[in-house]
Amino acid sequence: MARVFNFNPGPATLPLEVLEEVRSELLDYHGSGMSIMEASHRGKEYAAVHEEACANIRRLLGLSDDYAVLFMTGGASAQFALVPMNLLGEGGSADYVNSGAWASKAIKEARLQAKINVVADTSGEKPARMPAPDEIKISDGAVYLHITSNETIAGTQWKEFPEVDVPIVADMSSDMLSRPIDVERFGLIYAGAQKNLGPAGVTVVIIRRDLAARVSEKVPIIMRYSTHVEKDSLYNTPPCFNIYVVMLVTRWVLALGGLEAMAERNRAKAAKIYGVLDESDYYRGTADAGSRSDMNVTFRLPDEEQEARFVAEAATQGLKGLKGHRSVGGIRASIYNAFPPEGVDALVEFMRVFERRNG
Amino acid sequence: MARVFNFNPGPATLPLEVLEEVRSELLDYHGSGMSIMEASHRGKEYAAVHEEACANIRRLLGLSDDYAVLFMTGGASAQFALVPMNLLGEGGSADYVNSGAWASKAIKEARLQAKINVVADTSGEKPARMPAPDEIKISDGAVYLHITSNETIAGTQWKEFPEVDVPIVADMSSDMLSRPIDVERFGLIYAGAQKNLGPAGVTVVIIRRDLAARVSEKVPIIMRYSTHVEKDSLYNTPPCFNIYVVMLVTRWVLALGGLEAMAERNRAKAAKIYGVLDESDYYRGTADAGSRSDMNVTFRLPDEEQEARFVAEAATQGLKGLKGHRSVGGIRASIYNAFPPEGVDALVEFMRVFERRNG
Repeated sequence: MARVFNFNPGPATLPLEVLEEVRSELLDYHGSGMSIMEASHRGKEYAAVHEEACANIRRLLGLSDDYAVLFMTGGASAQFALVPMNLLGEGGSADYVNSGAWASKAIKEARLQAKINVVADTSGEKPARMPAPDEIKISDGAVYLHITSNETIAGTQWKEFPEVDVPIVADMSSDMLSRPIDVERFGLIYAGAQKNLGPAGVTVVIIRRDLAARVSEKVPIIMRYSTHVEKDSLYNTPPCFNIYVVMLVTRWVLALGGLEAMAERNRAKAAKIYGVLDESDYYRGTADAGSRSDMNVTFRLPDEEQEARFVAEAATQGLKGLKGHRSVGGIRASIYNAFPPEGVDALVEFMRVFERRNG
Repeated sequence: MARVFNFNPGPATLPLEVLEEVRSELLDYHGSGMSIMEASHRGKEYAAVHEEACANIRRLLGLSDDYAVLFMTGGASAQFALVPMNLLGEGGSADYVNSGAWASKAIKEARLQAKINVVADTSGEKPARMPAPDEIKISDGAVYLHITSNETIAGTQWKEFPEVDVPIVADMSSDMLSRPIDVERFGLIYAGAQKNLGPAGVTVVIIRRDLAARVSEKVPIIMRYSTHVEKDSLYNTPPCFNIYVVMLVTRWVLALGGLEAMAERNRAKAAKIYGVLDESDYYRGTADAGSRSDMNVTFRLPDEEQEARFVAEAATQGLKGLKGHRSVGGIRASIYNAFPPEGVDALVEFMRVFERRNG
């Protein structure tokens, strides 16, 4: 068995230790005589999983009782619709930052339901960047400010969040639990699991309880955050196996030292690749230096033919998933929490050799 | 490792062969050097999984091109809201059969959005039963008739579906792919995977394409069946691992001979337990003979103390998950497709011994 270095943007690499543990107990979870996939979501084995997954996230983020942690489904794309559905009643409005492809999708979906003000738009800029915090002016009557903390396609990331008088709602799908954050600024944080948290199929939502209570009774029961808060994400059968992997991954993050340690590890990994870009005239980073993502490092080569060859040759050396998003092309190295530092070293070495041969 | 016989109502037992295959390729899927959990949902490994899962379901049900197969999330509870949201515009109405706990939930959710007529209600009857097909009279203007093909709590199942002039929408969460059905009578079929199809976290939807096209443009994009039809369930990241297990389970159903063979196997399993109930004065079935479910066999003992002891003693002998739903009590043996016939033999033997000792 030869594991590759997997630079996929999500679904993404998982910690090897986690996969090994999943494998070892796949047919018999803790002596129960069944897989955790086959365990009742109301039984004691799964209850312990559900509680630990939740507790790990609370502990990692230092959440107060003002916040609930939910396990939902449908990915960030479902949250794009659920956020305005729950937080904006008839005639309510909200402010959104358009920082790229994912933010644009959130805005498009929200506009079907409410008045949405785009209060900053960097989506067309080159190099790609996030707005500076002081570029944001909140509109009269806006209930919340929506941001996308990391744009996986552009390779940009908020380094400092805006200080505003309304709660921030953040799509953190691609950098959740990758660094400490000041949760108190946020009213709602959501993240599809498939980058930093676990396999696709579960969405982690962190919501301030008072915001969950705002929902209108016209909203379908299953689509209310309040339903999931009240029932502790067990209103109906949750994606148990997916949450089980989230439990193992968050346990792994805790064992590595929590979010400060994770952020340091992530910064160090990203800095090695950005270092090559900065030294080189051959590679060209696409993100503005002040907005460079520690999760997705994006860059170009002199032409598309060389980019295609770079991706193909890297794959033959066990460096897979480096092709940029189809909408923008180029190269993208996605190096989420679970991506091992040795994989970054291998990429950096490959980049240097490739440049020598082609540059 | 001692696997038990797992009578859980869902999440439920999976075929052992499927779990073994999942385990064997968990760290390296088909030589890709990564787990299928880590594979891109746009890559060739997952594409083949997605296609085969879909093709297996099409083949098992003999679907024509008039129908699309979708992989969604949120379970049947999400479908309770999505069905009226998509199929009933402003002022539209639909007919629902209230056959028990799950049908009631579907009705409650639909009533938040539209005029719902309950055209038959057997939910309070004892013994529990499904309506006879000719009890159903469709209301003027009803767009569809909603039924619940199997009630897991009551232990009842439609044996013959109504013949009506509107498309039937069926929650088949607990008997999907357990028997052949005449799909042409149905406009939409949905099923949470966690009983007959795979692990919790994916919902299989079969929809007539013309019905998917009815949706209003006010409905959130992610909540439109039409979005998922157009994008082949890849509008956003699907629950890839869960769908992968569905692929393996449906492959297993095909290998066992398809839905005719599965129905025969299921009828034979259920008949053995119903046989004990019919022979005995000690055990008392709770479902009317004409509505007995082949998926969930429900029965009572003379009193609750004996029921509690039955469940506890069975568990010590490797027969787990026999406790009835907390809302009704009693005993429930859930014996979906993957439940092995030897487990039914073991239960029947246990029931006879328990009766001799306590009856």
